[in-house]
Amino acid sequence: VTFKIKVAYDGTRYVGWQRQAEGVSIQGLLESALREIEGREVSVAGAGRTDAGVHATGQVASFALERVMAPDVLMRALNAHLPHDVRVMQAVPAAAGFHARFAARAKTYLYRLCTHAVVTPFEHLYVWHVPAALDVGAMERAARVLEGRHDFAAFQGAGSATRTTERTVRRSGMARAPWWIAAAAAQSAPPVAGTAGPDLLVYEITGDGFLRHMVRVIVGTLVEIGRGRWPSERMGEVLASGDRRCAGPTAPAAGLFLVDVDYGDL
Amino acid sequence: VTFKIKVAYDGTRYVGWQRQAEGVSIQGLLESALREIEGREVSVAGAGRTDAGVHATGQVASFALERVMAPDVLMRALNAHLPHDVRVMQAVPAAAGFHARFAARAKTYLYRLCTHAVVTPFEHLYVWHVPAALDVGAMERAARVLEGRHDFAAFQGAGSATRTTERTVRRSGMARAPWWIAAAAAQSAPPVAGTAGPDLLVYEITGDGFLRHMVRVIVGTLVEIGRGRWPSERMGEVLASGDRRCAGPTAPAAGLFLVDVDYGDL
Repeated sequence: VTFKIKVAYDGTRYVGWQRQAEGVSIQGLLESALREIEGREVSVAGAGRTDAGVHATGQVASFALERVMAPDVLMRALNAHLPHDVRVMQAVPAAAGFHARFAARAKTYLYRLCTHAVVTPFEHLYVWHVPAALDVGAMERAARVLEGRHDFAAFQGAGSATRTTERTVRRSGMARAPWWIAAAAAQSAPPVAGTAGPDLLVYEITGDGFLRHMVRVIVGTLVEIGRGRWPSERMGEVLASGDRRCAGPTAPAAGLFLVDVDYGDL
Repeated sequence: VTFKIKVAYDGTRYVGWQRQAEGVSIQGLLESALREIEGREVSVAGAGRTDAGVHATGQVASFALERVMAPDVLMRALNAHLPHDVRVMQAVPAAAGFHARFAARAKTYLYRLCTHAVVTPFEHLYVWHVPAALDVGAMERAARVLEGRHDFAAFQGAGSATRTTERTVRRSGMARAPWWIAAAAAQSAPPVAGTAGPDLLVYEITGDGFLRHMVRVIVGTLVEIGRGRWPSERMGEVLASGDRRCAGPTAPAAGLFLVDVDYGDL
């Protein structure tokens, strides 16, 4: 039986999604848990290969088991074998041959910035701290430039080897956290209360594929624009240049979350 | 100059607010930081003595410095000497002799419960996980019984030595997280997205003073009522008994937050 699972993780302690020669990966943890459950090696495919320190609330993974199990029982068994900072949030049966990466139509990443003078203990692993008055309007105008089909070579981290650097971005937007998040922050419980809404900026991007470090280089460029070091028109120039040296610095991993994978269904 | 500071901390790694023979305390961290800044021993008083593993978003502390410093400079200097899971969020000058504990009129604690089947990686250190359909109405009725001036001896943890166990509770209420938190959870960024609103229950209590483990024993009792093991009337009976053995178990430290201290001003 092929299964599709939704996985949330705090990436702080891990080398990233993918198995590495050294260190603990999310894929490795899931494969170890499945080895215990299935009694043999099981290979797990993930929709997005998140880097070290990057988090996920909506990673999707797939694998095939010989053993017959109800999805809920499988979910509980997996969680019993996983550390608390990696959780299987949902498990459903999938069509035979379903592959979480090849079947994905689009992925959505979210990047969180805190502009307050001090970052609370509950937020510091989940934001990039930029204590400055950023021009969110200029950042939003620059973010929109990336929508559509483009060559994103200028936003690709070093050491990548992809056939093509063309990708389609469905949506690229920057905003202050909306009023109801500010309300939640002011009224509610602590982790929510972390950074007050007005000091929390969120960049969201949905695309059919992402180059290595692409979201983080985009955010690094947006922050240069937000600080007023570059005009918002710079984003189009960086895109057209195809040159990594024209873009901003790579934003830290901690602010980045894989939040959704679209398979053209619910 | 006497200072009043607002402190937020993630209590997970610490033995609690108060200095202990073994382990690292929040008070100890602040006193070490102040020793570096002031060049001599400085004694720090905290409004509430939170236990090991208990968190704070609004702890208040006071101390006197001989050195003259602007509050903002002091705040930055303290944060530079503190780990990221302990943050000074505000610093203001206070009247000479101001003492954070003696001057406090009331303190507010908040306790968070997650009733979802799975707790996300971003919530597991900040909730008590009770995966059950709790009767929130019964819990709320029971919570209200505690309002007013009462002898709270039945809710006092073992090993306490207080002159009196009478305390005044201004407010004691239990609720599902309100709709805007649910909206934030559904729409927004990850740590917020943690537990969906409807699965997050919040107990809030404001009082002039608290006995050792008092909030946690109250919550342990509320959960027994929410599970239907006891009727909501049990709360009044426990209160009247003055007997710790009549109350429920002590809820885990992780769900508890000191959120506010009232000094009768803004």
